[in-house]
Amino acid sequence: MSTSQSTNETQEFPSITVAAVQMEPRVGCKAENLEVSLRLIAEAASAGAQIVVLPELVSSGYVFSSREEAFELAESVPAGFSTQAWEDAARQHNVYIIGGVAERVCHKLYNAAVMVGPEGYVGTYRKLHLWGDEHLYFEVGDFGLPVFHTPFGRLAMIICYDGWFPEVYRLLAMQGADIVCMPTNWVPMPGQGNGAMIMANTLAMANAHVNGLNIICANRVGTERGQLFVGNSIIVGADGWPLAAPGSADRQQILYADINLKASRQSRHLTTFNTVLRDRRTDIYDPMLGTGWQLPRY
Amino acid sequence: MSTSQSTNETQEFPSITVAAVQMEPRVGCKAENLEVSLRLIAEAASAGAQIVVLPELVSSGYVFSSREEAFELAESVPAGFSTQAWEDAARQHNVYIIGGVAERVCHKLYNAAVMVGPEGYVGTYRKLHLWGDEHLYFEVGDFGLPVFHTPFGRLAMIICYDGWFPEVYRLLAMQGADIVCMPTNWVPMPGQGNGAMIMANTLAMANAHVNGLNIICANRVGTERGQLFVGNSIIVGADGWPLAAPGSADRQQILYADINLKASRQSRHLTTFNTVLRDRRTDIYDPMLGTGWQLPRY
Repeated sequence: MSTSQSTNETQEFPSITVAAVQMEPRVGCKAENLEVSLRLIAEAASAGAQIVVLPELVSSGYVFSSREEAFELAESVPAGFSTQAWEDAARQHNVYIIGGVAERVCHKLYNAAVMVGPEGYVGTYRKLHLWGDEHLYFEVGDFGLPVFHTPFGRLAMIICYDGWFPEVYRLLAMQGADIVCMPTNWVPMPGQGNGAMIMANTLAMANAHVNGLNIICANRVGTERGQLFVGNSIIVGADGWPLAAPGSADRQQILYADINLKASRQSRHLTTFNTVLRDRRTDIYDPMLGTGWQLPRY
Repeated sequence: MSTSQSTNETQEFPSITVAAVQMEPRVGCKAENLEVSLRLIAEAASAGAQIVVLPELVSSGYVFSSREEAFELAESVPAGFSTQAWEDAARQHNVYIIGGVAERVCHKLYNAAVMVGPEGYVGTYRKLHLWGDEHLYFEVGDFGLPVFHTPFGRLAMIICYDGWFPEVYRLLAMQGADIVCMPTNWVPMPGQGNGAMIMANTLAMANAHVNGLNIICANRVGTERGQLFVGNSIIVGADGWPLAAPGSADRQQILYADINLKASRQSRHLTTFNTVLRDRRTDIYDPMLGTGWQLPRY
């Protein structure tokens, strides 16, 4: 098959326009944060976006000062404030929206992401791998790694530090995921060089490439109670190369990209003999990789 | 613990000097290739290197034109031509050497890497994931993912396309590996942008970062029977950042770096609450990741 044939075939299969919304939530300002998210969703939709991804904990803010505050800023899903507002926006603008919320279930909190679409609430993801002081407020996720079927293809959600675990991307790809939507609140990693791509972007590119996954990372910006967030939102194609270049380190911004699922699925075939997911040597991989029989890691 | 204390402690724990030898083997010229490798090993050792990594299939060349030629250029391990010569060099220069050979075992060939040291032959690795036309000549590796103990720490070997499989790095890290030595013959990946870091370097950085592994990638250069190789050898530290910047795309070169195993093992601790290998949610990871009960993938 020649490259030109491949391009023609791809053009006949429609692309999806996706958007990563980079914004600056302020801890405690739920109504204002939600308002900004709704304005940016409308802007992205009017620019043609069919899938819009917002940052992690976008309505509550991230750096809580107490358990009381964390519970105060949390909400139920899907009945809560943010999910309901995003449902309305998704219906109004005919888009899918993925956004991060502090989810409250009685005396438990989860760092969650919700997906809503024109037909209403689609599903929830609960962050599996907690970072830093999140251990003071949240329970570890207990919904596993679900993949949601939409008219555009198979979508999954993961959150921030989950992206440090290649197992996460593998398990989503093995379930057929096409696009991973990642609300994040990335913080600086030690050793970052001046002008070097941030490590979180490197991880997204590597995991996209070896799994044939599109990845939409929407990060926040700003400094909250002394914690800097690094922006640099990115949309990566299934071949591992950025479709939308890293966003600003400190400004609110919407990144857009067109994703073609036919090209994405084809990108998993590397040579006549090689299909990256099928080349896995599961005959020698070891139960050390994880077999589902251990206790959760609180 | 303050940063200055940490630096002082690290300085008391000796660093190791390692070298990645980027050279241009010529297919069929075994004696000449070996001669060049011995000259570069001597140069690296006289510059202080204690571990020297050579490219994949460095003595045979890579692009075989027939099974007869592949068998002709292969050799036994450790009794063969290259391993014996490297053993002598390792003894003479007091270094560890890791190099790629086509290993012949009766009517079977393996794309192998051997490790030799001042005390003689240490061990062999057989490439687990075959790339492209390697499927015409080689059997898939059947030695698993061994970790070898040396006076410097725990060393492992993998080869080229093995680096596309995050499972490989995870299983080595879970066995305590400190340094992964990777003879490679990297070829161009589709979609590479002008001036962008090559995808293989991105993969090495990502896998180093999420596993706390040092990775020494020694690639070849040149074009062999129409196949271009991309150079860009790299040595990555356990925090994921390059210790020696990508090598030239087309010139013979030796890259050097100092690796401190105390700093490497400390780099796995990311926050008070986070240690990257121990944060793995093995309670939810699925047997899809690999459980060792399937047939080998020929």
